[in-house]
Amino acid sequence: MPHEKYTSCIEACYDCAEACNHCAAACLKEDDVKMMARCIALDVDCAQICELAAAVMSRASESSKAVCTACAEICRLCGEECAKHRTDHCQECAQACKRCEEECRKMAAAA
Amino acid sequence: MPHEKYTSCIEACYDCAEACNHCAAACLKEDDVKMMARCIALDVDCAQICELAAAVMSRASESSKAVCTACAEICRLCGEECAKHRTDHCQECAQACKRCEEECRKMAAAA
Amino acid sequence: MPHEKYTSCIEACYDCAEACNHCAAACLKEDDVKMMARCIALDVDCAQICELAAAVMSRASESSKAVCTACAEICRLCGEECAKHRTDHCQECAQACKRCEEECRKMAAAA
Amino acid sequence: MPHEKYTSCIEACYDCAEACNHCAAACLKEDDVKMMARCIALDVDCAQICELAAAVMSRASESSKAVCTACAEICRLCGEECAKHRTDHCQECAQACKRCEEECRKMAAAA
Repeated sequence: MPHEKYTSCIEACYDCAEACNHCAAACLKEDDVKMMARCIALDVDCAQICELAAAVMSRASESSKAVCTACAEICRLCGEECAKHRTDHCQECAQACKRCEEECRKMAAAA
Repeated sequence: MPHEKYTSCIEACYDCAEACNHCAAACLKEDDVKMMARCIALDVDCAQICELAAAVMSRASESSKAVCTACAEICRLCGEECAKHRTDHCQECAQACKRCEEECRKMAAAA
Repeated sequence: MPHEKYTSCIEACYDCAEACNHCAAACLKEDDVKMMARCIALDVDCAQICELAAAVMSRASESSKAVCTACAEICRLCGEECAKHRTDHCQECAQACKRCEEECRKMAAAA
Repeated sequence: MPHEKYTSCIEACYDCAEACNHCAAACLKEDDVKMMARCIALDVDCAQICELAAAVMSRASESSKAVCTACAEICRLCGEECAKHRTDHCQECAQACKRCEEECRKMAAAA
């Protein structure tokens, strides 16, 4: 398939989108939601850009570079925020964001 | 994780989104693009509703039923169109659509 | 333009998406975020399905019926939740949801 | 509303998303679809990043800068391609892309 070179990054993006969406919903069920407000906001942004990045790469699109550059930056913001919180969903999300940031930076450099 | 009951359907949705996006781009590179026009149009729709379905299920959202109902219907349309074409990307997409349609119908019935 | 019959519904969808996204962010800044948790969750869902509905209608897609049916249902859920809260952003969002629900129901019946 | 400073850019993004989605569907109905293949591909990318840009700005999100930077770049690619084709939908789309590119560049510089 022509989008094979993107496979690892697409997978990282879908994993991250799923982790971010799960984290956002789980944060909204925490006792102290207020403390999680920035985490929720970034989770939603990050999930959306990750889904878009996966989409453009699946289309082997020439837009991949621009989208992956933005995706790496938002993964960084979201991953750093998630890393501050001790809940499992935040820690798992931080890991997914970090991996996705790395994959997207490589892709943006190569695309 | 609270969205575990959705895991299999989320995976089917991401697989289908990737297959549809790949199929759309590959159809645009075929010699007879005109013959693929409906396939391209449905691929784009199907990829987008699949990504949304994965997102709402990852959030264990109460919107899952409505989104999965729509997703199953669009997977059916797209899968039937793809099945008409002999190219590998269309045949693979038809399979992904069929599996995703089934998963989404189960989810819509259960949610 | 071939998507003229959709114009009024597309506009309602974009208005609703904007109102829902704004409401979600504003709810996250309220003192009692916990009370707004369901509102935030539905706002995010509703904004996403509204953007998708606008997209498929702008493409005059045969998927419009299925997407508008789901959109109307999620607008109803979100609008009813928003209507319970006195803040301006919730009241404005409830109005946008109600209008979008009506437009999408008409579209789903006609498409 | 806290997202007032984004109003003009959000509007440009929704206009551009609608124009791109319409252009993609209209290109697929042209006699010589093959000639429009790159236009269709970029239209789909551009519509998606424009909808995401409108969403993050409606949430007054700190991700706005990264998303608007990517959006401006993809609007440039799409607008330049559309400008090459004489059909009304391409010419209208080229205009919408150009305006959205400008608004997104200003936003990215200011955010």
